[in-house]
Amino acid sequence: MAAPIAFYFDFISPYGYFASLRVEELAARHGRSVEWRPMLLGVAVLKVMGLKPLLDTPLKGEYIRRDVLRHARRHGIQLGRDLNASIGNPLPPARAFYWVRQHHPHLQARVVRALYHAFWAEGRDLSTPEAVAAVLVPAGLDPAAVAAGAASDEAATLLRNAVAASIKAGVFGSPTLVVDDEPFWGCDRLAEVDEWMSVGGW
Amino acid sequence: MAAPIAFYFDFISPYGYFASLRVEELAARHGRSVEWRPMLLGVAVLKVMGLKPLLDTPLKGEYIRRDVLRHARRHGIQLGRDLNASIGNPLPPARAFYWVRQHHPHLQARVVRALYHAFWAEGRDLSTPEAVAAVLVPAGLDPAAVAAGAASDEAATLLRNAVAASIKAGVFGSPTLVVDDEPFWGCDRLAEVDEWMSVGGW
Repeated sequence: MAAPIAFYFDFISPYGYFASLRVEELAARHGRSVEWRPMLLGVAVLKVMGLKPLLDTPLKGEYIRRDVLRHARRHGIQLGRDLNASIGNPLPPARAFYWVRQHHPHLQARVVRALYHAFWAEGRDLSTPEAVAAVLVPAGLDPAAVAAGAASDEAATLLRNAVAASIKAGVFGSPTLVVDDEPFWGCDRLAEVDEWMSVGGW
Repeated sequence: MAAPIAFYFDFISPYGYFASLRVEELAARHGRSVEWRPMLLGVAVLKVMGLKPLLDTPLKGEYIRRDVLRHARRHGIQLGRDLNASIGNPLPPARAFYWVRQHHPHLQARVVRALYHAFWAEGRDLSTPEAVAAVLVPAGLDPAAVAAGAASDEAATLLRNAVAASIKAGVFGSPTLVVDDEPFWGCDRLAEVDEWMSVGGW
């Protein structure tokens, strides 16, 4: 089996959400799996880059608001979140993911799907360990254990290390797909990643 | 005939160059023309946005260097310019364009092609009115008149107004294509623009 596609994303990123809906099928078509790698755009990466959040950037912010809705319309993707609503604390879902990855690795993908769907399709709040745990129940996890896990020092350390690793790998945007050490940034690039895997690069 | 595609770009933008090579064919396929609208990213737009130049942005700069070469390889596009070389003064080519547009409007497209090719395919310097005029000779223009035109107050005013209009239209990146008031940012979006025109939007 070929190496997995590393899929870097932030749960608060709508483009990460859009790409997450297609990356598993893309990977499977090439006999690959997906390695889910949540990171933190606003809290970490933008600080390294010296940038303000996308939606707060003059001109670009307005475009992004329009483009996200346009993309959702085009692909029939449910979008239950107001882009202007507060994102809240982005740490709990990412910490919960790494806690699950550590203790229930076979549930990783289901956790990504459940959290992304809750946040973007349903517009639910994920800014506390308890809110995250409530969403994760359908994945067959014990809510109390997830809440405790998301709030644990262990999860905080796992996420901190993952974010540092993503920055070290040069990741600056969500989504970023890395295939055989080749990085592709943006939901727009899924077709290019597909082609890259088909022909073995260029 | 349907409304033209407004093509906003900066001569110093490699993605603007890449898209310029395909936009005329794209427009023609939909019975449209291209309205060329050079603007100034570094000198004007990034200041409004409060951003530093792309290549000077940590993490993103390295990615862009890699991605530009990868795109050129993939599409067999000649790239004679070292991305790390100084861009020089971006005003003369843009001013020359607006001077030509004013006085020889039928030569607009040829001027864009000649300047982009000189800058990106050949790696030539365009940072003075004389350097720009030397490139424009093949388009059938008098070099001395072009040099004087590019250095004129008239050209400076035309460009200043064009840049102000682009910012007012919300343009923040090169290339940006506007089709029937709908903006699409990025060389990656040509396929989406194609689809938008085919189905009449969504």
